[in-house]
Amino acid sequence: MKKIAVILADGFEDLEALTPVDLFRRCENVLCTTVAVNNINAVSSHGVTVMADTTVYNVNFNNFDAIILPGGMPGATNIASCSLVMKAVENFLNSGKLVGAICASPAVVLANNGLIDGKSATCYPAPAFIDMMKVCVYTASDVEVCDNLITANGPKSAFKFALELCKYLDINPKF
Amino acid sequence: MKKIAVILADGFEDLEALTPVDLFRRCENVLCTTVAVNNINAVSSHGVTVMADTTVYNVNFNNFDAIILPGGMPGATNIASCSLVMKAVENFLNSGKLVGAICASPAVVLANNGLIDGKSATCYPAPAFIDMMKVCVYTASDVEVCDNLITANGPKSAFKFALELCKYLDINPKF
Repeated sequence: MKKIAVILADGFEDLEALTPVDLFRRCENVLCTTVAVNNINAVSSHGVTVMADTTVYNVNFNNFDAIILPGGMPGATNIASCSLVMKAVENFLNSGKLVGAICASPAVVLANNGLIDGKSATCYPAPAFIDMMKVCVYTASDVEVCDNLITANGPKSAFKFALELCKYLDINPKF
Repeated sequence: MKKIAVILADGFEDLEALTPVDLFRRCENVLCTTVAVNNINAVSSHGVTVMADTTVYNVNFNNFDAIILPGGMPGATNIASCSLVMKAVENFLNSGKLVGAICASPAVVLANNGLIDGKSATCYPAPAFIDMMKVCVYTASDVEVCDNLITANGPKSAFKFALELCKYLDINPKF
């Protein structure tokens, strides 16, 4: 059983969060849990209210095999402000567990907080985000796999990102 | 201002519903409203609870320019059981307003209820659905445009479907 946490902070980008959830839940032997950072009813960057399965205060991240960080603003900023998620992400990166991040999150959550120095990664190509990526090797690709870090550049790549996460975890979504 | 209703019945396929919503809300001069058929808190086919903007009992479909019917099961069956949506869809098809349907919905909601006889359309390629499509010209394509009817074949085509809906409505999502 692969256990995956998808983080839902207020301002999350709808497709970047819910495409991985959709694909994970099409796989056998996967438990995908949406984890709210702010309120259990998380509001997306496009005004869609999604009731998360649980909150950061009610999970033990050690029990998960992967953490997924959707983008969207201020979703990424809200993730970066949550010490419980940030500590878990740091532990995951250091212990070889998968961290997936897309759009604003590779820059705002990871690079800007010194978590991916020297890694190859991509993000949404806004100048402010690319500037944050100076600590790593910014590849500008749609999806980038670097050891246990998978990054992607935005909502247009959400499906490709989710497929790459499934491939890394050796799980197969059925359509 | 283009006004678009996206129908959320319990069992709706997550990406087929929320990809159009995401893209519509990236456009200027568009009001996209999610309309619940069963409960205001609609539960997707993958267990994601989404709070709809309103319900079928609180909207006048005459005020909309387009109706979008996500697939998913039993989402499509639940749409077909809602006389308020079915009446609106019939009116839209007859009056030249856009109807978009994807996955199970072209078959279960439209073809199976005699609403698209003779039209070119596609749907999710399950034998039971293809059988329902005998009344129309089943094309097996990812996305099919036939006058004011746009159909698509499933979640993998949700993004392409949403882009085609935007093109038809002459609106431009910004990424």
